[in-house]
Parts: sequence; C-alpha cells; structure tokens
Amino acid sequence: MAEENSSFQSVKWDNGQIQIIDQTFLPDREVYITLTSAGQVWEAIKMLRVRGAPAIGIAGAYGLYLGIRDLPESAFKMFYSECNRVADYLDSSRPTAVNLSWALQRILNTIYVHKEKTIPELKEVALKTARTIHEEDRRLCKSIGENGVELVPDNANILTHCNTGGLATGEFGTAFSVILHAHKKKKVKMVWVDETRPLLQGARLTTWELEKAGVPFTLNIDSAAAFLMQNGKVDFVITGADRITKNGDTANKIGTYGLAVLAKAHNIPFYVAAPYSTIDMKLDTGSDIEIEERDPEEVTHIGNKRTAPKKVNVYNPAFDVTPNELITAIVTEKGIIRPDYKKNFEELFS
Amino acid sequence: MAEENSSFQSVKWDNGQIQIIDQTFLPDREVYITLTSAGQVWEAIKMLRVRGAPAIGIAGAYGLYLGIRDLPESAFKMFYSECNRVADYLDSSRPTAVNLSWALQRILNTIYVHKEKTIPELKEVALKTARTIHEEDRRLCKSIGENGVELVPDNANILTHCNTGGLATGEFGTAFSVILHAHKKKKVKMVWVDETRPLLQGARLTTWELEKAGVPFTLNIDSAAAFLMQNGKVDFVITGADRITKNGDTANKIGTYGLAVLAKAHNIPFYVAAPYSTIDMKLDTGSDIEIEERDPEEVTHIGNKRTAPKKVNVYNPAFDVTPNELITAIVTEKGIIRPDYKKNFEELFS
Repeated sequence: MAEENSSFQSVKWDNGQIQIIDQTFLPDREVYITLTSAGQVWEAIKMLRVRGAPAIGIAGAYGLYLGIRDLPESAFKMFYSECNRVADYLDSSRPTAVNLSWALQRILNTIYVHKEKTIPELKEVALKTARTIHEEDRRLCKSIGENGVELVPDNANILTHCNTGGLATGEFGTAFSVILHAHKKKKVKMVWVDETRPLLQGARLTTWELEKAGVPFTLNIDSAAAFLMQNGKVDFVITGADRITKNGDTANKIGTYGLAVLAKAHNIPFYVAAPYSTIDMKLDTGSDIEIEERDPEEVTHIGNKRTAPKKVNVYNPAFDVTPNELITAIVTEKGIIRPDYKKNFEELFS
Repeated sequence: MAEENSSFQSVKWDNGQIQIIDQTFLPDREVYITLTSAGQVWEAIKMLRVRGAPAIGIAGAYGLYLGIRDLPESAFKMFYSECNRVADYLDSSRPTAVNLSWALQRILNTIYVHKEKTIPELKEVALKTARTIHEEDRRLCKSIGENGVELVPDNANILTHCNTGGLATGEFGTAFSVILHAHKKKKVKMVWVDETRPLLQGARLTTWELEKAGVPFTLNIDSAAAFLMQNGKVDFVITGADRITKNGDTANKIGTYGLAVLAKAHNIPFYVAAPYSTIDMKLDTGSDIEIEERDPEEVTHIGNKRTAPKKVNVYNPAFDVTPNELITAIVTEKGIIRPDYKKNFEELFS
C-alpha cells in the first residue's frame, strides 16, 4: 500500500486476521475489533459493525478465507463443497448486498479455475483473491478522487450528502475521495455536511471521517442547504450514486434530487462520483428504477426516542432519482463523463 | 365561542384558572395542567409548557390577572405599582417574546386608562382585556383560515413546514388554519408534513394537531419534499411567517426558502399565511432581517442522544428569507395579498 495515500480504512487484513472499526459505536467511540473466524465476520456484517456495499464485500471475501483456512487436506471436490458452504453462510448475513455475493462468487470461481492445485495452495488463492478485491476497490476509489480533483476550484466550498467515504469502501470512498484528494492539493476551504435524515449518515459518519482526515467542515441540517447556496457559501455539490441509468439519470440517497434542483437554481455545478460499475446499461431511464421504501421507525424514532405520535402515517423513500439534465458531470475511475451521457456511456461501454 | 368552529386550543380560561396542554409531554402524552397563580404561569412559559408567540402572550395576559386578583383594596398608585411588578416578573420568563411584553403592556395601559375605577373593577378590566387579547387572536386566526380556503383546490395535496397550529396561537393557527378550514370544506386529500429539523416541530406537533383535527396527513423528512413534488404529490406549499418586509420578502423557519425554490421549479404555488402584524413596514427588504443562529446542540443531539462527534462545527440558522418573487400570495386576516407586494402593502397600510 502506498503510504503517501494512506487514509482511513474500515477493513484491514492484518497478520492473518481482519481488523475493522465497529461502526455501531460511531461517532461516540472509536472501537476496533479483530475477526478471526467466518462466524465473527457473519455477525459483524449482520449487526452492521461493517457497512457500505464495497466494505461488506471486502470483509466477506476475507471471511471466506478465514472459514476455509483450517480445513483438512482432502480431495478437491470435498474441499470445494466446504468452500461453497462457507460462502452461502456468509452470504446469508446481508441477503440484499450485491457486492457481498459478487465477492464470494468471485473467490469460488477463482478456486475452481485452479482446482489442479493442492489444498494449501488453493487456500492461498482464496486469500490472494480477497486481497485483490480489496486492492481493486482501493485503487478504483483513489482514481475517482484523483480524476475529480480538476473539478474543484481553489478555496472550494463544497456541499455533500450522506456518507461516501472510507467507512463504506475499501478506502477513500467516492464523492469523499474527490474531497480528500482536493484537500491534499490544499484546494478545500469548507465542506458543508448535510446531516442526512433519516439515518444521519452525514452527521454520524461523514463528519467523523472528515475530522479524521483533517478536512475543514461544518455540519448543517438538510434543509439549510438552500440557505447556504443563497448566501454564496457553496461552490459545488458532490454526492455518490447507488445506480446510474443509460441516460445518466441517477438514483441516490433521498435528498439528492432536491439538492440538484437547488444547485441549478443557484447556478452551482452538481457532480456525481461513482464507480463505473454503478452505471447500469440495462436500465434506460430513472423511471425504471424502483424506489425502496424503508421502515417508518427511521423517521419516527431516533435511537429509542420516539419523535412523532404513535401510529402516524409516514412516507420514507430511501432514494430519489436525479434526472441527467441536472447533473453537470459524473466522476468515475475511468475519468470525468459529461453530457450527453447516453452517447458518452455508449462510447465507453463499446 | 362559536362551537361550530371549535378546534384545539392550547390555552383556555376556565372558571377562574388557566388550563393549558403541557407541550413538553407532546407527542408522547396529552397532559393538561391548570395554572392558578402568576408563579405557575411564569414557570409554564419558562419551561416551554406553553410555547408559540401568540399563545405565550395569551397565557401571560391571564397570568397577570392571576397575579393581581388577590391584591388588597388600596390607593390606585399602590395597586398599579403592584401590577407593574407582576408584569415585569411574568415578562422575565421569556425576555425575547414580543407578544408577551405587548400583551402585558396592553393590560397595564388599559388599567391605567380606567384608574378612576375601584380596585375590584380594575381587576375585572384586567381579566376582560386578557380575554379580549385571546379572542382577538382566535378571530384573527379564523379569518386567515377562512380567507385562505379559496386558494385550496378540490382534493388538495398540501405540503407544510414547522408548526403553525392552535398549539402556538389562540386557536386555529395561521397556515394550519387555512388547512383546517379547507378540511372543513372537504377539500383536503393529503397534508404532507415536513418533520422540520432540527427541533422537529412538524413531526412532534403538527402531526399531533392534524390527527386531533381528523385531517389526513403523512409525515416525511424535510429532504423528501423535492421528491414528492417531482412525483406530482404536492398541489401547493403553505407555511407561516416570522416577519415579512415591506417588499414581501419573508423570514420563516429554516427550510422555507428551499421549499419555495423547489415549488417554483415544479410550477407549484407557494403561499405564506400570517397575521397582518407580521408585516414590518420599517424593513425594506429581507436583507435587513438578522438571522438568529441557535445552539449547535439542537443539531448534534436529539433528546439526550448525541448524533454527531463531539465538538464538531455546526451552522444552525433558525430562519431563512424567501424573496418575494417566489411567493405566490400572502394570506392575512384582511384578505389575500398578491404581488406587487410593495404596492399592495402600501395601499393597505395607508
């Protein structure tokens, strides 16, 4: 690992075991725990000690190695069947986490490709693949950050939403990586952090990561973003993305669409930063994206405290969709993509 | 009191004592308490058991009567000096509450005007003035509601922000009064309630009042408002106002300005409802309004629970200013005012 780029990593492979920061204690306490078995990894994912799709994939990949490390020498078929059992078990910790299934399957496939090797050699193949998955995510996030820096003016006042940093990824993050790399070039004057209701990822996690990285920031409630723009305190907005369709329409954390509309009304650029894999060429437009509705308790309770009357009707969409015409540019590990997105995506994918 | 218009009242004068709903228990529990002395009124205002500028003024007015009711017969000068002492004491419970000072002063002035009367008669004058202050606020709020109904289409989907209902006023409220009167005409399909961070007046109080009034509503996080508009779920937005300048620029709860920009971007009318007294003809434009910044703990804590790291920088403006060009109309007790506000205010005030 290139030390000059070191920043916060939520998952580390350290001397035969996984070290993670237990995110359930954040931001109150910074608690690191080590995981030495597949069972512990399962529990850590299940209990959200490790969260964020890429980070879960990475933890699961190392977890698979931990689960097969002590298997006895045997015929390949028996060994491989055990590998599958461990992978299925780990996968059950967060059934909807696509990165987790993907990482586990990738390791299984790689083991299978090398089936002529000895069992100890196959175990090394599994570990090596896990490390590759981790390293690829780190490198990808780093590239996103490096590519995005050119969008950042000197003395930049940046507004961001939700958590897109190293806590959720291999390292660096996505939108967070752009901020981090711009900060290294001394271009960042202030990061405005939307607290990001209902789950407060901005207040709880992004502030914590910015503090850790020494980036100047100020926390604000989501509905103060417009006022900040009105008063000339925001030079651009940057967010992550959960899914980008063929025409550039982007699904991301609820609140993102409103920020994009407000940015346009104030003539402020609105950028999205995401890995290339976020672009889903199977979906034509944002209207093809199904919006997940989440538990009303996320809105009516904070911790154990109820903040609304019992049994109120709640609408709690997890995401919204920002139409492509509101997005100034999309930063990926392959470079900055500008409109016409449909045309430019097609060129990139061809 | 006209029974056909009865709705929730946060302060009631009942058989020689004040009955209030203790708002510190909302929305968890509906606790009514009676106040029988000026000391109890002072404590109730201080501890936010009664809140909202008009409601505080009304409680304080009755409180002054309670504080002088048992004074012995004496010369006017001695009696009046005692009245002033009680008024000063009550005023100290919320030094920045303009309505409170105003109500207390109005009673003192009225007593002074009638100084030829007997002490028992003067006590009755004080009570009568308190009842007048209460009744005037009720009537004013009722008129705002009645006037606003014509803005409401059939099957209306309305979005509102913060708390503007009977909890904060003599009865009916301001923007809430428009919703309530439209509901009585069966025009309301759905009220979308912004939870209104940081203090969650929407989630805690407006939902409670709507439930009480039987108006259909759904609670949403503030940053979901744009998504609701995008999906055609909002026919108009209506909010209250803290202060309106000569040209129609309007200061109101933080988040209001963003809603106005979003409403315009979606071609949705944006209305403000407020008493005529909210229009401050001494201020030319919104830039003359000083924006109060409030305690960072409102953002970093919910109840006793900390939701952000220790010692983070926080920007917590209490209000924002919506420029007149984003406001479709202003509903007052004197009627609906439309642009050009400067011209139309001047006509009304002349």
